[in-house]
Amino acid sequence: MQIQSHPPLNQFVTSLSAPPISTVQSWGKAYAGGRGPLIDLSQAVPGYPPHDDLLALLGKMASSKAYASYGANEGETALRMAYAAECSATYGATITPENINITAGCNQAFVCAAMLVAGAGNAILMTNPGYFNHETTLAMMGIRVDRVTCAAENGFLPTLDAIASAITPTTKALALVSPNNPTGAVYPAKLLSQVLDLCRAKNIWLILDETYRDFLDKSELHQLFSRPDWQNNLIGLYSFSKSFCIPGHRLGAIIAAPELIVEIAKIMDNLQICPPRSAQAAIAEAIPILTDWRESNRAEIMNRQKALRQTMGTLPQLKLATCGAYFAFIGHGCENESSESVAKRLAVDYGVLALPGSYFGDGLDGYLRFAFANADVATINSLGPRLANFH
Amino acid sequence: MQIQSHPPLNQFVTSLSAPPISTVQSWGKAYAGGRGPLIDLSQAVPGYPPHDDLLALLGKMASSKAYASYGANEGETALRMAYAAECSATYGATITPENINITAGCNQAFVCAAMLVAGAGNAILMTNPGYFNHETTLAMMGIRVDRVTCAAENGFLPTLDAIASAITPTTKALALVSPNNPTGAVYPAKLLSQVLDLCRAKNIWLILDETYRDFLDKSELHQLFSRPDWQNNLIGLYSFSKSFCIPGHRLGAIIAAPELIVEIAKIMDNLQICPPRSAQAAIAEAIPILTDWRESNRAEIMNRQKALRQTMGTLPQLKLATCGAYFAFIGHGCENESSESVAKRLAVDYGVLALPGSYFGDGLDGYLRFAFANADVATINSLGPRLANFH
Repeated sequence: MQIQSHPPLNQFVTSLSAPPISTVQSWGKAYAGGRGPLIDLSQAVPGYPPHDDLLALLGKMASSKAYASYGANEGETALRMAYAAECSATYGATITPENINITAGCNQAFVCAAMLVAGAGNAILMTNPGYFNHETTLAMMGIRVDRVTCAAENGFLPTLDAIASAITPTTKALALVSPNNPTGAVYPAKLLSQVLDLCRAKNIWLILDETYRDFLDKSELHQLFSRPDWQNNLIGLYSFSKSFCIPGHRLGAIIAAPELIVEIAKIMDNLQICPPRSAQAAIAEAIPILTDWRESNRAEIMNRQKALRQTMGTLPQLKLATCGAYFAFIGHGCENESSESVAKRLAVDYGVLALPGSYFGDGLDGYLRFAFANADVATINSLGPRLANFH
Repeated sequence: MQIQSHPPLNQFVTSLSAPPISTVQSWGKAYAGGRGPLIDLSQAVPGYPPHDDLLALLGKMASSKAYASYGANEGETALRMAYAAECSATYGATITPENINITAGCNQAFVCAAMLVAGAGNAILMTNPGYFNHETTLAMMGIRVDRVTCAAENGFLPTLDAIASAITPTTKALALVSPNNPTGAVYPAKLLSQVLDLCRAKNIWLILDETYRDFLDKSELHQLFSRPDWQNNLIGLYSFSKSFCIPGHRLGAIIAAPELIVEIAKIMDNLQICPPRSAQAAIAEAIPILTDWRESNRAEIMNRQKALRQTMGTLPQLKLATCGAYFAFIGHGCENESSESVAKRLAVDYGVLALPGSYFGDGLDGYLRFAFANADVATINSLGPRLANFH
């Protein structure tokens, strides 16, 4: 049975591209396997499983009657307390449970933050390159996306001048991602502090997505949450998916002023009443006991980054532009060929899945995103021989 | 630390009322307990736990590495298949897995459906009385809410004329809930078929929320999905929360044309990538094995309804206006007193939590919503003596 004709649909939705990850993964299915197993560097997922103790906790909580019923809009108190304590220690700041709202993943945290500060007809400023789901989320809500161009020569970081001149009277917020997706660029603490000042002066919000925070060298962390005025215009976003290897359980968090958390709870009540409960209970118990394991993963991801830098050094046709936390942004060097065409060839002919630069903004057709954290060091090392003849 | 001043927030969010359930449950905390244990008829939750086999499945799947990673935007194939088969049997129709999108609860299913067909500045038509989360969801997205008044004399059902005259050029959809929340009214099959025809003639979508479907007498089910043209303008919504007693795991579903499911997957990708996976895997296995248990719950809820009708018959000051599936809409008989004031007195002085009629629309201050399915027959019977002196 086919639809014959139907009432109109929302053009903000129908005009969105198909979700990019599915598209790229479908290319992988055409790879014949001649160069060894498929190497999937497309989606940002940890290439190792969750800790056994966490799996046991997830099972225990999910089989409990206690978590089968509805929970609080803001999330489980136990997790809000545990995550507030972790953030206070991580940032050297005082973050309370009333500053925390738990969401079903960091994408949902972004939906809540964006909806809290902007409606249809307003604008939110993103970077170019930028994370495509932020763009599509804003687009489907009718929020205009303006872009600050981040030049490759500046390590894909925005300048204060570029941000200032991109802010218009309809701009409600600047959304940044650090460590960055797709480039891997880590925003220096000083730059972030200056950006927060600029946003304050312009009376707009700074939405800072730190999904990949736990894979930074700790010395690279910002000090924004130590500022006495941070609650006035900073909203922090986080994902438990990467650090605990549980993207399928969907858990993220928002850090904001308690007054904002009260408003976000209203949005969450509409979006899905409460985030899934049993995984929240599991993570609340896992936070204090998995510290060492998470630190070893931080070290492992840094080893992978080192391996990638070395491997790329053996491939003169591929140029590592930026690299950090989970991602590398790589110039593919194929002149007059779109990044989508290059990524497709890489998938079908070489068995390596990467995302085209063009998915992340304008003028990025010369690049590919490698989510190198997905692959272990041996696999990363194998990229050298596999791509030696790539052109 | 208090916020001193901050950039503006989205007034579509700040102007929303606080989530009603939390408000009413806070009143219960002021009840001193003198009339026996608190009877919570506020939130629509099953008053019995999930089946042990389902709890075991939830635990098994949640502790599995297989479901820790990202899943498909549309939901797990196994659950789409199992739920399509169940719907085909339930409705006596052919519903395929490509007709199904799994969501994190039915509120999220409504968000997806509404966003798919309407954007800011469009209108969606609801009933009055109507489900408050539908209203707040549309309001926060800047979608105008128009209302069709459903008269008490007509069993709180809309008439075709009233629907037709409420449709304007900006109306994109009519959203109905059957069995209804808050009134318990069950929409007759013939009425629903006529409403679908009317929507077709007016070129708008019918969004039909059947969260409480599994507590109907089966003879009361509609036949819309047997119509050859249903995919042209019908979107069905469902919740696994009530029938499987797992609201804390957040699972719902959308039934629509495959072309629409492709668009909904884009929305889901932005909202939260995929619904939580392990609970999906558990429900996929539970659907075929828990048929008898679910049927016994259907019978139990019908017994509760019978008990409520009998109990209410002993309380002349309270008038049962409508009753069905999970809910009763009850005239409180307190003249010149708002339903909020009456519900608050009922909570604080009598230890009975019910929702004020005014939360569901205009002109409903004479009513209370009792979510009677929360309480067992003995508890429902105890309402008679407890409320005998209520006035």
